[in-house]
Amino acid sequence: MIVIKLTKRQEEIIRLVKENQPITSEQLADKINVTRAALRPDLAILTMTGILEARPKVGYLYSKKGGNSIVYDLIREITVAEIKSKPTVVSEDTTVYDAIVQLFLNDAGTIFVTNNDYLVGAVSRKDFLKIALGNTDIHKVPVGIIMTRMPNIITITDEDPAFEAAKKIIEHEVDSLPVVEKEITEEGKEMFKITGKVSKTNITRLFVKIGAGK
Amino acid sequence: MIVIKLTKRQEEIIRLVKENQPITSEQLADKINVTRAALRPDLAILTMTGILEARPKVGYLYSKKGGNSIVYDLIREITVAEIKSKPTVVSEDTTVYDAIVQLFLNDAGTIFVTNNDYLVGAVSRKDFLKIALGNTDIHKVPVGIIMTRMPNIITITDEDPAFEAAKKIIEHEVDSLPVVEKEITEEGKEMFKITGKVSKTNITRLFVKIGAGK
Repeated sequence: MIVIKLTKRQEEIIRLVKENQPITSEQLADKINVTRAALRPDLAILTMTGILEARPKVGYLYSKKGGNSIVYDLIREITVAEIKSKPTVVSEDTTVYDAIVQLFLNDAGTIFVTNNDYLVGAVSRKDFLKIALGNTDIHKVPVGIIMTRMPNIITITDEDPAFEAAKKIIEHEVDSLPVVEKEITEEGKEMFKITGKVSKTNITRLFVKIGAGK
Repeated sequence: MIVIKLTKRQEEIIRLVKENQPITSEQLADKINVTRAALRPDLAILTMTGILEARPKVGYLYSKKGGNSIVYDLIREITVAEIKSKPTVVSEDTTVYDAIVQLFLNDAGTIFVTNNDYLVGAVSRKDFLKIALGNTDIHKVPVGIIMTRMPNIITITDEDPAFEAAKKIIEHEVDSLPVVEKEITEEGKEMFKITGKVSKTNITRLFVKIGAGK
């Protein structure tokens, strides 16, 4: 997978096609003042990337894929499953102090809380810092008292694009998302098993991987 | 700027060029069992992206830009200056408590510490949490006592690629880098003015922006 930049001429071609579609390569060459042969590589690039559509005996059309929302396959096709990492999980009755110890041991940004294996809450470093500064007895109070509780936790699933995870992280201003599998109980209640997490660290690591061309 | 995926045939062409370079389009067409005309768009893509080099009267060569480290312009050309945000800065004699207040007020992940406008240290949420759990009187102890001190802080400059910032964040396992301008004192000492910060949040935001095609 590769990333390329459009040249000025390619951008000019896109503009001309948008304004005059359908337009033949002959007409395009005429407007740009070059030969048809000179345009051929540009038109090849623009059709192969799906920006333009070439219709035999009609000419070039601007593709419905539209303007700038071009072929971001590279970023959009990588799934959460490919970049998720192991979440740090404690049970609801763990003391705040013990949860913080887990945070340090795993160098985690967010601790996820489960009850009988189902996700019930999350606590961030910021939440812990706030509690540590207050009058709470962190050796006695369970993490279940201070956590952000379901359904107020933004989740993501294995099949979602990594791009979607990054978008949720930014939009909801959180550091980390639990990756979940939905289950419906006999009473018809939605429950979530946690199978991983996607944090800003995972996204940054992916960004480095893409940038390094791996 | 656009992202495209190489087709199987394009990958096949790269392999053949690597093994037989220099190789003419005629020879390539022969090996792949298609006409030269059919290969033209592929060769156009591969030369325009800099993967192959076309030398008149010689043939195609595999570009020195090399294998997978292709044209990651999109990610590599965006500079730190374009994505940096405002750093939260306190002076060295600020109490730990007041520094934490600043951290919350600015929703910052890391606090940077200056002395006469020059960067001298940094404190992360994790550092603060560790201190808050200990016996330190955070209302009395200045942040200068607990901070990570220069030169043990990883920095970046405006002109560096955002990609480089992301790499440093991952390699050094930090949340945030101060963006600095180097100054040399009369005594020949290197000093750094802080002009911004790049955190995992900035990288994640950039990732979303690229993925959205903006």
